[in-house]
Amino acid sequence: MPEPASKPAPSTLRIAIAGVSGYAGGELARLLLRHPRLQSATPLLLGRMGEPEAVPTALTHLHPQLSGIGPANELRVLPFTWQQLQRQSIDIIFLATPHEQSRAWAPQAIAHGMRVIDLSGAWRLQQEHNRAVYKLEDTDPVLAAELQREAVYGSPELHAPAIRNARLVANPGCYATSILLALAPLVRSGLLDLDHGIVCDSKSGASGAGKALVPNNLFMHAADNLSAYAVFGHRHTGELLEQLGLSSEQFQFTPHLLPIPRGILSTIYVRLRQPSRPEEIQAVLERFYAAAPLVRLRPSPQLPQIQHVARTNFCDLGFHLGPDGRKMVVVSCLDNLLKGAASQAVENMNLMAGWKQSEGLQ
Amino acid sequence: MPEPASKPAPSTLRIAIAGVSGYAGGELARLLLRHPRLQSATPLLLGRMGEPEAVPTALTHLHPQLSGIGPANELRVLPFTWQQLQRQSIDIIFLATPHEQSRAWAPQAIAHGMRVIDLSGAWRLQQEHNRAVYKLEDTDPVLAAELQREAVYGSPELHAPAIRNARLVANPGCYATSILLALAPLVRSGLLDLDHGIVCDSKSGASGAGKALVPNNLFMHAADNLSAYAVFGHRHTGELLEQLGLSSEQFQFTPHLLPIPRGILSTIYVRLRQPSRPEEIQAVLERFYAAAPLVRLRPSPQLPQIQHVARTNFCDLGFHLGPDGRKMVVVSCLDNLLKGAASQAVENMNLMAGWKQSEGLQ
Amino acid sequence: MPEPASKPAPSTLRIAIAGVSGYAGGELARLLLRHPRLQSATPLLLGRMGEPEAVPTALTHLHPQLSGIGPANELRVLPFTWQQLQRQSIDIIFLATPHEQSRAWAPQAIAHGMRVIDLSGAWRLQQEHNRAVYKLEDTDPVLAAELQREAVYGSPELHAPAIRNARLVANPGCYATSILLALAPLVRSGLLDLDHGIVCDSKSGASGAGKALVPNNLFMHAADNLSAYAVFGHRHTGELLEQLGLSSEQFQFTPHLLPIPRGILSTIYVRLRQPSRPEEIQAVLERFYAAAPLVRLRPSPQLPQIQHVARTNFCDLGFHLGPDGRKMVVVSCLDNLLKGAASQAVENMNLMAGWKQSEGLQ
Amino acid sequence: MPEPASKPAPSTLRIAIAGVSGYAGGELARLLLRHPRLQSATPLLLGRMGEPEAVPTALTHLHPQLSGIGPANELRVLPFTWQQLQRQSIDIIFLATPHEQSRAWAPQAIAHGMRVIDLSGAWRLQQEHNRAVYKLEDTDPVLAAELQREAVYGSPELHAPAIRNARLVANPGCYATSILLALAPLVRSGLLDLDHGIVCDSKSGASGAGKALVPNNLFMHAADNLSAYAVFGHRHTGELLEQLGLSSEQFQFTPHLLPIPRGILSTIYVRLRQPSRPEEIQAVLERFYAAAPLVRLRPSPQLPQIQHVARTNFCDLGFHLGPDGRKMVVVSCLDNLLKGAASQAVENMNLMAGWKQSEGLQ
Repeated sequence: MPEPASKPAPSTLRIAIAGVSGYAGGELARLLLRHPRLQSATPLLLGRMGEPEAVPTALTHLHPQLSGIGPANELRVLPFTWQQLQRQSIDIIFLATPHEQSRAWAPQAIAHGMRVIDLSGAWRLQQEHNRAVYKLEDTDPVLAAELQREAVYGSPELHAPAIRNARLVANPGCYATSILLALAPLVRSGLLDLDHGIVCDSKSGASGAGKALVPNNLFMHAADNLSAYAVFGHRHTGELLEQLGLSSEQFQFTPHLLPIPRGILSTIYVRLRQPSRPEEIQAVLERFYAAAPLVRLRPSPQLPQIQHVARTNFCDLGFHLGPDGRKMVVVSCLDNLLKGAASQAVENMNLMAGWKQSEGLQ
Repeated sequence: MPEPASKPAPSTLRIAIAGVSGYAGGELARLLLRHPRLQSATPLLLGRMGEPEAVPTALTHLHPQLSGIGPANELRVLPFTWQQLQRQSIDIIFLATPHEQSRAWAPQAIAHGMRVIDLSGAWRLQQEHNRAVYKLEDTDPVLAAELQREAVYGSPELHAPAIRNARLVANPGCYATSILLALAPLVRSGLLDLDHGIVCDSKSGASGAGKALVPNNLFMHAADNLSAYAVFGHRHTGELLEQLGLSSEQFQFTPHLLPIPRGILSTIYVRLRQPSRPEEIQAVLERFYAAAPLVRLRPSPQLPQIQHVARTNFCDLGFHLGPDGRKMVVVSCLDNLLKGAASQAVENMNLMAGWKQSEGLQ
Repeated sequence: MPEPASKPAPSTLRIAIAGVSGYAGGELARLLLRHPRLQSATPLLLGRMGEPEAVPTALTHLHPQLSGIGPANELRVLPFTWQQLQRQSIDIIFLATPHEQSRAWAPQAIAHGMRVIDLSGAWRLQQEHNRAVYKLEDTDPVLAAELQREAVYGSPELHAPAIRNARLVANPGCYATSILLALAPLVRSGLLDLDHGIVCDSKSGASGAGKALVPNNLFMHAADNLSAYAVFGHRHTGELLEQLGLSSEQFQFTPHLLPIPRGILSTIYVRLRQPSRPEEIQAVLERFYAAAPLVRLRPSPQLPQIQHVARTNFCDLGFHLGPDGRKMVVVSCLDNLLKGAASQAVENMNLMAGWKQSEGLQ
Repeated sequence: MPEPASKPAPSTLRIAIAGVSGYAGGELARLLLRHPRLQSATPLLLGRMGEPEAVPTALTHLHPQLSGIGPANELRVLPFTWQQLQRQSIDIIFLATPHEQSRAWAPQAIAHGMRVIDLSGAWRLQQEHNRAVYKLEDTDPVLAAELQREAVYGSPELHAPAIRNARLVANPGCYATSILLALAPLVRSGLLDLDHGIVCDSKSGASGAGKALVPNNLFMHAADNLSAYAVFGHRHTGELLEQLGLSSEQFQFTPHLLPIPRGILSTIYVRLRQPSRPEEIQAVLERFYAAAPLVRLRPSPQLPQIQHVARTNFCDLGFHLGPDGRKMVVVSCLDNLLKGAASQAVENMNLMAGWKQSEGLQ
């Protein structure tokens, strides 16, 4: 299907980030500060909303590693209001905020004329029973339901056309991205014996848990350690079921906390309907990702590892077929803060602006 | 079956270690130096065999962390011959040597009147096609085949009676121990739907790969990283199939290299024949390990983590049952150099001597 | 000076720990659980004092790594009162509590007939201006001043005779121990040009900062990082000045946070009055530590490293002399939770009981 | 002094790297692949020289993390000859080679019309006794001596004018850069009491030691560890003495190996001639680095930390003045592979080309 003729892409956009103080917010700021289409644009607004009396803080105070990068030294993180954003003609606002806030703010931002890219889990799920894990409360349930139906799941490899025209993009979860990019081509190709079930064993660096001052985020908890958590109950399960069209019987996912700052590796166990050869699988993946700028396929039997993707914008995929030609292990790696969050959000922005998908990311 | 009446246990034994310079050898030395039954025994012979011209080295030069522990400062690592060991009336020799050496030396040690605990993979496998991965060559194939049949797989939780009387104990592999202790009670109880298949996703610290000067052992390879390796082809698979009585169709195992020095965590995915409740599973495990001194069961839904077992002699087990009561995730943790190697070897020695299984280990 | 004839040492003691939930408290519990003189003693009381309504907690819930070690599984951490401790005839109480609590509780414990080993900084400093950094407040200043004068600085290598008879032992700080053991023999021997000044550059693992939920204790702060802190202002400076008899002009100390769980390495820069040879320095150190069970001297030019002392009870010392024979670098390593805290506290207990100094520590 | 009028800067250059397989070589390739002035330039030659029969290797095979970055996927690492480089009209060759090779190759490259940026220690030292530690052997000693006199020490903050016109730039050592940038402004300002002596206590991540398969580079050696090495004898001492104009009596330097992949932190102890206030020191530093694009000054009392410079091109500086106003601690941080090697080499290339010093680095 050819893309519809559309109005020409703007040369730049006016951007705001809410929630820039977290790890993903900091990476997002870094990417946008270096983005060639945004370098001359003013303002890049960085904000804490709803804290009207908060004192402006230097961006480099919150993220010292950004000092000296583009205009970072001049940027202030400000409390701001919707009116101010509207007055500044903000085109797109990134919400790098907790899901409760994202659920409340997305409708308001849209009502004030902005498009929204939300990095939380607030808008990813169409099915109410999946959404239940987030315990979301809507002040205007009718409007929220409508906006939910309109929201586009921001996986550029799967939904680029819809993202281009979206008002509200729900940026995928970090674990979900690593698993979805591995499974989508295989599920869609019909190669998998879905009834046998799929097992995803994922391992993530500590930044995935955010900056909260809780015992599990302490150095003394994570260092020299590995632990499984949220077995049979991680929130990213729902978005994977919806995106892959699987039932909860067919899919299981166990996350683990790795003693490293960044990176996810997912080891995914599937069974093929028919015995296959590695070249057939490789061909399916290559076809699917032929135009995907941020997915790198390793030629089997090479496998990706976290070291090769950490602090890059890429998701790397590789696989091994068992001697029976039916058991298969797929390994997927990405940086949870980048392709698992900020880089993917920038891809979505690029698509929404009509720019090249990987603009500012290679 | 009651244990046969036997001669009284000796108060001490005379012990030698071949291959003390490696990580497992060092831990073995540490445990034996502290063992209450061995403290007055002389000698603890530590050796490099087959390097006749090698200069004796201080044990604390090879393992500085042992300085000041018991008589460690006085011990020398010596080149030694079978005749010397025989003259010293060595009762048991530990072979912490590469599998080729262990395969050659165990028959010689036995011929010189010693009992052997071998920490390599040389003697663990009864089936020739499983053993093939080690590419073993026997100078006397008939004798080797005989000794192979006599060799006892040194899992004290599974084979204590045979170990007590064994001349040759094949100490289990580190990954194999972590998986076997999780699965043996479940397989034996008949609870598992074996035809569905079992998936073991294991992660090990870097000491598991030994001291070899190869790129994968470099700090810069392992740090801030995670990588899968030997997918569908790890050597420990064979011993697990034999010990669990599974076919290769029913079982798959993927090891990963963790950026930590020590510890293994195995996440094991099984399916139960019938929907069950956690208490039933817990009861099966408790019964099986009622008398096992070094297996600690976590009450579900608690799960073990590497931090709680690293530098201990224990294997910790925990599990989660899925909402369908049939999908189950078992998590097993141990220190690969201790319960996965040296501590288990000491348990075997204790059994062979007629001492308490956990003597010197608690 | 011969030790005075004294009454025979008791075969066992009754012990309590207040503040067992921290890292040092946990290590202390581990050591006492394994201590041969205490194994038959009941009770080992573990407590949170002053939280009357707190529910008793299993020790192994707070410290899962202690499961299965001696009687650990049966032990409960209880809220307790001075009356209960007195009724239980507790001989010695360890205070592994914040310094404010230790300052308040030590007089009360002594009033109830116990001897005290305090692991905090509350009682280490004789000079008021040094003590000021702790902002201590005494309800009975006269009694506190009296007790302060009586308190013995618990460095067994320096003050063994006084410790034996002490009612209140102030266990040294972790950094202070690593520096003091390196410098005391050199300062006392008169070899150093003190007016040139001494520079101590120390690096500590993250457990030194305790379990507080503060940003600097997060994995994401400490991992892949190194940072200096408290330059010219660390609290351990005062106890070093007092113990070494130095002025603040003569001494400076910079601590750093290492991305590892445990261990301190101090690199100490001194200048000798006269050009010397390494053997002379080595001889001074050997003489000083001839009878010290937990200090290990490396023969120059070998240097200690953290790996060799972590999780051991030892302090390791080594040094290099510059080509001029006057510049000297001393390197001192220990485990901050053991010789820098819990092991040293057990040494003090052993001395107070009249037992061998290293009982239960080798 | 105004810069002399010179011919206009070229719009691009033709570049080669010898020794691209190491860590610094890989970072250099990454920077050059992204460099805006080089993106259209062909070729970027990557090479192993002197291995004529070696098979060309994909750059992304040696450095998988470079996959998908600019034209990296098409680049091959080739054996090459001087004639080929000359035929390709290479303007500048980077030597990321061992110092023996750099010593032999620089004269040859220059004889074939190229300018050279050498990342090894081969050409940094003017004084023969300092150079002795490298045990260099010259086939043409007269030519080598001449070239040595002509060689420019490639610190762009100190020697930019000479670098612009240099044929041979000796890129500084990683430790040396971290210390030099901290001390140069202070020494040149005459503020320091040099006779008191300067103490530099530096700590470096493991990549500083390169990829050699030696025991000290193993994960099991570096992890959970810290160790001092080359006390009173590190090779970078000589270049610091020469650049700072100090005698070996006045300066001492102790490097340590940190358990992290990248980053150096140097803690530097100096004494001021006169009591000063922090603002005076800050002003001296600010003046000195007013035009330096890659030096970031922290406002006292903030101090730099490795986390804020790792994987950036910056060197961060901060300091604390003691209460006497004379003792001062300066902390300097950089990424040893970037500002300590590859980024500084790119700065030198930019200067040699007449481009902006930080082109492609911000």
